Amino acid sequence: MAVYTEIDDDELLRFVAEYDIGEVVACKGIAEGVENSNFLLQTERDSFILTIYEKRVDPDDLPFFLALLDHLSARDIPCPPPIHGRDGAALRRLAGKPAAIVTFLRGVWPKRPRAEHCAEVGAALARMHLAGLDFPHIRHNALAIDGWQQLLEATVDRADEVAAGLGDEISREYRDLADHWPEALPRGVIHADLFPDNVFFMGEKLSGLIDFYFACTDALAYDLAICLNAWCFERGAEFNITKARRLLQAYRDVRPVSEAELRALPRLARGAALRFLLTRLYDWLNQVDGAMVKPKDPLEYLHKMRFHQRVDGPGAYGLD
Amino acid sequence: MAVYTEIDDDELLRFVAEYDIGEVVACKGIAEGVENSNFLLQTERDSFILTIYEKRVDPDDLPFFLALLDHLSARDIPCPPPIHGRDGAALRRLAGKPAAIVTFLRGVWPKRPRAEHCAEVGAALARMHLAGLDFPHIRHNALAIDGWQQLLEATVDRADEVAAGLGDEISREYRDLADHWPEALPRGVIHADLFPDNVFFMGEKLSGLIDFYFACTDALAYDLAICLNAWCFERGAEFNITKARRLLQAYRDVRPVSEAELRALPRLARGAALRFLLTRLYDWLNQVDGAMVKPKDPLEYLHKMRFHQRVDGPGAYGLD
Repeated sequence: MAVYTEIDDDELLRFVAEYDIGEVVACKGIAEGVENSNFLLQTERDSFILTIYEKRVDPDDLPFFLALLDHLSARDIPCPPPIHGRDGAALRRLAGKPAAIVTFLRGVWPKRPRAEHCAEVGAALARMHLAGLDFPHIRHNALAIDGWQQLLEATVDRADEVAAGLGDEISREYRDLADHWPEALPRGVIHADLFPDNVFFMGEKLSGLIDFYFACTDALAYDLAICLNAWCFERGAEFNITKARRLLQAYRDVRPVSEAELRALPRLARGAALRFLLTRLYDWLNQVDGAMVKPKDPLEYLHKMRFHQRVDGPGAYGLD
Repeated sequence: MAVYTEIDDDELLRFVAEYDIGEVVACKGIAEGVENSNFLLQTERDSFILTIYEKRVDPDDLPFFLALLDHLSARDIPCPPPIHGRDGAALRRLAGKPAAIVTFLRGVWPKRPRAEHCAEVGAALARMHLAGLDFPHIRHNALAIDGWQQLLEATVDRADEVAAGLGDEISREYRDLADHWPEALPRGVIHADLFPDNVFFMGEKLSGLIDFYFACTDALAYDLAICLNAWCFERGAEFNITKARRLLQAYRDVRPVSEAELRALPRLARGAALRFLLTRLYDWLNQVDGAMVKPKDPLEYLHKMRFHQRVDGPGAYGLD
């Protein structure tokens, strides 16, 4: 589950009284997300999401994330703007940890994304990228190549516990990507974790993008590569070229993609696969006794990485 | 967490369309409760709780529970009435399992109950008992003495893994209670699990009683004994006589308690302590790898059991 912190009810009332959002009617822990504790907070006036930031989020990054949500929502990106307290602050403390209240977004995330969902995600991602171009703050991507190296060092010796030969395979892939990583692509704010459970829909219309806690400054096309991996493979790991075409085409209809970005896409997608493979492998090898979140299968991303290794150009993704 | 079942979004929309409650706006798994999967369902019109009944609930018992909620809420007990579908049915199936939608109740449960909360609980319990007197259905208490015997047999050989001498102690206590269990006390519908997380408050006023999935027909005073254990001990297991007095007195102000019930109270409280000790012990000894719910400490209830063994009359609970 996603509730690591229990909130004392008196403390909750005092916390909410710092905002002009009405009296608390209910507050329930939500069993979604794995990094932070999230609560659905209902007041007399409206519903909100109350997040308590747990130890995997660096408190120094929180102003970046909250400012980004303010920036994007002011530009009509359907992300949840933070609620500012009567003192103007969006970030304060609850139960001894950093905490914030954000607007509640309507919609449900698609358990089995269809091609229509992929098209909506592509368009929304492009709109988010454009809206972020004038965002004045920079956050280094901690899970870019130098971050992968640290994860590789922390996992490679035990990787073969998960699959025979895995240690060699990820070492080779890391070295190849590090030696030929596409540089000089257009950069900006990327979401970096836009999985289906972070995208809400009302029917087939996208209604919300959430969970910007990996957002950072990086190549925009790398975000697109993350989405290709997250949205365009079936549960059996088969690549769905129709979904990829719809996602990429809808993105291009909003933000033109350069030749260099298209050429880089297979390699960016390999990198994106390696990034999630490494974090999942790390979590798999470092399971905490009594943890309340089941680690995700690292091998799902091994299959995706191998798929992109065989790709020789953007045609494999359904593009002309 | 309390979400064992993932609901496909299309299936959810079809399910909700069977009711006259408006269109789905959001549906989030709630990280509360351990027996069933609970979702906070929001429609254009209102908020609801959607419950999918998991394997620890016997489907044959569900009509009893739902009829009880209808019965009690019709008598102004603040419990969540089930929503009936357009066809009149309250119980239907979702994701291959029994499921129901109930009304959403306002309030938060008290993380640190105070004496004022205990008084409210006592009065609400008594009102519930009175309102249940004309409920026409019967459900045997599966966790009464014969159920304890089965749990004892399933745990006694390994009980000393949890605490030295525990096997002997619970065997002795079980035999003593079985030989001298108070019979012929007034009976009716009891909640049987009215812990703080099943009681909501708005400020210091009780606003809701939830989770009737252990409700059954048994001695009313046994329900009171369960509440004494659940509400009137501090976190360090010290008994708080002020809380007990407030809870019992508020109960008596609504439903007079007979001399026989008062005399039986220490023994009922020992039995209530043994019941939760045994179920927690069973869960502790039978932890499932990868389970998402941490088992509760059985020894908390050993201390409570021992406290009631030393009680020689209702005066120890603050009663004259």
